[in-house]
Formats: sequence, C-alpha cells, structure tokens
Amino acid sequence: MKNSLETGFTIGFLGAGQLARMSALQAFRYGIQVASFSDRDETEPLEFMTPNIFKGDFTDADSMVEFAKSCDVITLENEFIDSDILFELREKSGTPIYPSPETFERIENKEIEKFTFKEAGIPVTPSRIVSSPEEIAGFADEFGWPVMLKSSKGGYDGYGNRTVERGSDAKTAFEELGGADGRDILAESFVEFTHELAVQVARTKDGDTAVYPCVETVQEDHICVAVKAPAQINPVLSKEAQRLANLAVEAIDGVGIFAFEFFLTTDGQILLNETAPRPHNSGHYSIEGCITSQFENHMRAVTGLPLGATDLNSESVVMINLLGTHKRPARVDFAEDAIGTENGHLHIYGKTGSKPGRKMAHYTLLGSDQDEIYGHAIQATLNIQI
Amino acid sequence: MKNSLETGFTIGFLGAGQLARMSALQAFRYGIQVASFSDRDETEPLEFMTPNIFKGDFTDADSMVEFAKSCDVITLENEFIDSDILFELREKSGTPIYPSPETFERIENKEIEKFTFKEAGIPVTPSRIVSSPEEIAGFADEFGWPVMLKSSKGGYDGYGNRTVERGSDAKTAFEELGGADGRDILAESFVEFTHELAVQVARTKDGDTAVYPCVETVQEDHICVAVKAPAQINPVLSKEAQRLANLAVEAIDGVGIFAFEFFLTTDGQILLNETAPRPHNSGHYSIEGCITSQFENHMRAVTGLPLGATDLNSESVVMINLLGTHKRPARVDFAEDAIGTENGHLHIYGKTGSKPGRKMAHYTLLGSDQDEIYGHAIQATLNIQI
Repeated sequence: MKNSLETGFTIGFLGAGQLARMSALQAFRYGIQVASFSDRDETEPLEFMTPNIFKGDFTDADSMVEFAKSCDVITLENEFIDSDILFELREKSGTPIYPSPETFERIENKEIEKFTFKEAGIPVTPSRIVSSPEEIAGFADEFGWPVMLKSSKGGYDGYGNRTVERGSDAKTAFEELGGADGRDILAESFVEFTHELAVQVARTKDGDTAVYPCVETVQEDHICVAVKAPAQINPVLSKEAQRLANLAVEAIDGVGIFAFEFFLTTDGQILLNETAPRPHNSGHYSIEGCITSQFENHMRAVTGLPLGATDLNSESVVMINLLGTHKRPARVDFAEDAIGTENGHLHIYGKTGSKPGRKMAHYTLLGSDQDEIYGHAIQATLNIQI
Repeated sequence: MKNSLETGFTIGFLGAGQLARMSALQAFRYGIQVASFSDRDETEPLEFMTPNIFKGDFTDADSMVEFAKSCDVITLENEFIDSDILFELREKSGTPIYPSPETFERIENKEIEKFTFKEAGIPVTPSRIVSSPEEIAGFADEFGWPVMLKSSKGGYDGYGNRTVERGSDAKTAFEELGGADGRDILAESFVEFTHELAVQVARTKDGDTAVYPCVETVQEDHICVAVKAPAQINPVLSKEAQRLANLAVEAIDGVGIFAFEFFLTTDGQILLNETAPRPHNSGHYSIEGCITSQFENHMRAVTGLPLGATDLNSESVVMINLLGTHKRPARVDFAEDAIGTENGHLHIYGKTGSKPGRKMAHYTLLGSDQDEIYGHAIQATLNIQI
C-alpha cells in the first residue's frame, strides 16, 4: 500500500451515500483523493464530490474491478455486499479492503456473528435460527413471548425485523421475512431494557484502538432519532460497554470504525445487540462532539494513519436525526433557528430526493446540561421541513 | 437566487487552491454543490473534489461565462481578477458574485483602498503613489527611511514588496517592481511594531457581521508562518482591532469573509495594513479553534445563511504553516508526531507538487497555555518534510 500522505493516494468507497460523503470530507482534509462506486441510477451524495465516479453491481465483482484498481484502499459504507464478492474483488484487483472480507465473513450472518461474540465472552441476547413457525413457538417456550424475528442477512433500521407477540402471529411474520422462501430467520428473545446504548471503536491494522464514549440512542420504530452523549448511566456500566465494544472489535479483527449497540437491561446487564462495520448514525455526534470524529478515525484507520483522541469537546452533546417530511426534490426549509443556535451544527447530506422517513440531515448541539440542550435541539429543529 | 438549501444549489469558485478547497468542504456539509474554475494546467486542490471542473483565463470574462451560468453564486479565492472582468462576468452570466465587483473595485488598487479606509476613520500607515526613485526619496524626507514599496495591484505573501533602506537602493527596487514600466508603486512608511495582528470578519448581504477574535500572526520574510489565538495583548487593543475590522468591512460593503491585518505600533497604535477579501491563512486556526470556522461563515455569508458564533473552542489555539521543503511530487513525511498529538489537527491541501516555501499544509493545536502549545506545535511539526 502506498503511503497515504502521498500525491494521488485514493480511497474508494463502495456505496456513495451520506456515510461515504462524511468520510470523504475527512479524507480530503488529509489531501487524500476519493473514488465512488454506486449501484444506483440516481446521483448519490458522494458523487457530487469527486470526478472519479464508477457505477456497477454489488453482486458482481467484475463490475467493480476497474474501480478497485484505481484505488489504493477500499472501504464500504454498508454491510450488504457478500464477503465472497469482497474476497473475489480483492483477489482480482489486488487492492486492500478495510474492514476486510474476513471481518465481514464473521458478521454478515447474524447467527455466526452471535457465535463469534459469545465465544469472545461478550453477553448477547439469546437467539436461534428458526426454520418454521413451530420453531418460533418452541423458542418462545424457552425464552417467553414476544420474540424478535430478524432476517439473518441484510436488515437495517428495522427493515427485516418483526416483533411477534404471540404464537398466532408467528406464521405471518415468518413468511413476511422470507422464511418460507428459504431465507435464514433468527429468533431473538425480547429484552426488557432501560437504555439503548452505543459505542464506536476505531481500530488499525496494528491492533491499536480508539474507543468512543458510551452514548444513549433514542429509537422510534427501530430508527435512531436522537443520540445523547455521554449516556447518563452509572459510569461503571459505561466503562463496561466500552470494554465489550473493544473486545468485540478484536473478536472480528476489525479495521476501520465500528459501532456496537447494546441494551442496558432492566436488571442492569449490558447485552450486545447490533454491530455496524462502518461509521454509524449513533456516532454522528462526534463530528463536533469529539476531538477526532468517527469519520476521521475511520479514514485514519483504513489509510494507515495513527488514531486520534476520542474525548468529548464539551460536557454534553446531543444529535437529532432529521428525516424527510415530504416526497419532493430535496430541500431544507425553516432551518434558520437550528443554524442560528450557538454551538448548533446542521449537516445536510446532499441527496437529490426527499421522502418521508429518509435520513436527510442531522443536527448536533453542544453544551453543558444534557436535558437542557436536548430540549433546545428538539425545539430548534421542530419546524424544519425536508 | 435559489434557496441555498435546495437540491442542486451550486457555488462556483474562481480559483481552485487550498482556500477554495477548505471552503468547499463547508459547502458540502450543507449539501451544497461545488464548481471549480481554474486558469492552471495542473490539477488543483479543488479539482479533486468535484465533477464540475472548468478551465479558462481570469483576464477573459467570456472564458468564464459557461462556468458562471452553471452556478447559483460565485466566490473567489484570490483578489487578482480585475473588477472590470467581474462586472462583465456578472452582467453576462446573471450570476451573483460575492464579494461583489463593487467591493473589489474599492480594494484592488492599494491607493484607493487606503483612501476608502481613511475616509471611514480607520488609521492606516502613511503612504503615497510614487512615480520615480526621486519621489521615493521625497517620501522618505517626510516619513523617514526605510520605505516599504508595494505594487499597487496583485501583491501577496511578500511578492511585490520591497523594503528600501536608503536612497541609493530606491532605483533598483522601483524597477524590480515594474515602476519604470508604468506599474503603480505605493510607498509606505515603515512602521515600528510590537505585534502583527489579524481579525476575520464575515458579513452577510443584510449587513450582519460575525467578528473573530484578534490573533497574532508570526511572519518571516512577509510570509505568515504561525498564528496565535487570541493575541496576548491588552484586551482593550484587541477590541479596538475588532472594531476597526468591523468598520473596514462596512466601508467596502463586503459580503463573505474578510481578513484585516494590523500593526500594533511601538507607541500602542493600531494601524490597518492589509486586507484580504477571502478566507485567509491567519484564519485557518478557526477550523477547529472556533465554533464556526472562517470557511463555514464564508459559505454561510455568500449563500445567504445566517452567520455562526465565532467564540474560541479553547483558551488558546495555535496554527503552524507547513511550507514545502522539497521540490517533488507532494508527499508529507514524518507527520506521525503531529497527527498523534491530542487535539492537534493536520490539514493537507492536496496539491500535486511540492516546492520549497509553497503552502502545502497547516497544523492547529488547541490547549490552555499558549506558550506551551506553541512550543509543542513547533516541536511536533519540526521533522515534517513535504
């Protein structure tokens, strides 16, 4: 691999959405160049930011080889490309990929992922692959109703998840998720929790890690709507979540930035729930909120630069997701309050089209009293229409 | 003018160097798109960051019209384009230009600039246009030796400046600056100063301003090598420099970001020395050092967004310019210490070639004790080779 601070060093992004875009902004800051690979017809956020634009198919390694050969290193903004394809792409192009195909292999299937983490001594929610509605009922006999059903591959933001309240609902949910068509479905016991938590960890090829503060995520319908940093929980528990996140990234030999989402259960246990092998919505607060953002440490990790400090820049930081409110060409209206608030920071992703619920922008506010700035941030963004 | 937070709103940069690049990073952050216009054959820093690349000639408005028509607003990263050309470009394209051609008209000629500021009640160094070596001697009779000679148009970073120590040197300096070829030469009395200061001011079309802290610039051979924020001078004097900077931006009806450089004279006077109608090296510290950086407020001002707070994010901030050390394809070596220092922030401009003295990168360090972090920043960057 070329020295990343040399002329022309290029990082390639598989996926050209807001995560790639915000990562690229940090690459540019080091003079690093950027190439974009997308499988969508529309012009994606990253594609406004580089002359090096490639299109193709994430299920066809050959369609990515030219792109890969033009890059010195490749990273991904999602976890939906099969590790087989990534192995093939790395083999055919000779370009390193981080996180590596080996890492993706350990987490792309939720059952293998859970096994890997359990082996590493990380508490996870009880779960089992189920191949019929009857097996769901069997699982519930052991762990109780409701049962969470998840597609074993490819779910995010609640797509691919179903909560099954009782035996009579099992068949519908199982079929909706494709279980009857041979898709692997994971049954997970439903966890009673007081907080949903997240911890980002960046890790280099040499195994150095930078662990971010433990934050609280506020979810509605399985979509993260807000983040509060730091999580207002017993510091012993925050430290424990950070320790588990660090263990988890080691367990999958992760290189790059990773997000680990945890439940803090009603009986005070911390259980690993979800893993994202990429910058994650729960870490957007770090752009202004931490000395080194998740995006910058991601770039540093995959390009071989030393990691930066993850301390908070202020006592409290809150982040509000701004979801699409209209189906229309993207436009942000009534943002003056948000932009005009001291130490409030608006980020707009540059998508061409809005639709209700689509992640279009986010807003970060720094301050001292967390409840106060959380209320203030909600107030300042309340009238925004996108 | 389209709403700047609408799909496809595009800001055009005349000039594609590091100032345009760092400004563009802030435009992207608001989902705003970017177009680049350059007169150079080499691929310039901004040109790695957009698919919208135009080439042409800054002295030929017609060569810029297609570029201008593709933009919703245009800004500049230097002050070397004749205001006549800017008027013509605005007329032919219908695209607004900020800072406006009217503003450039008032500052592109150093004699008119000084007149404008004097009229506004801003103390400036005594100066006069000289049309012969004899007139230089006459000026020195009044104000004493040495005399600073400056090209009235187009000088920066000490190019186009000469210090004349005595009458016998006047002829050579006058001719070297093109005075004998009809170029306007300004004689300026040499000011004895204790500090060189700078203040950034952003101003909107509605006349709102955001004034940055007064900082100290450290110059060697007329090139800014470091900046210390805030300036360690009597706060009354800092306030006075900020007041004068605010008056100055009003006097030229400036829209965008402006840098004003001052001398603090040995007898405690603040004299306006230089004006830059653009982001300026003396304001790079603000990227991490202030709540809203000079680049972000520049983007906000020219795209019609409200300005952001300019408070410092820490007690002290220092910035070190990293100039080219070798003539070679650009490469930054031995930067590990700088990157690895907590709250140290390296920015590399993405130029294709290095040469000794060329501005290639800068380094910002935040902390509390200014002398301590200044020493630390120099130490951390000492071994860097570019």
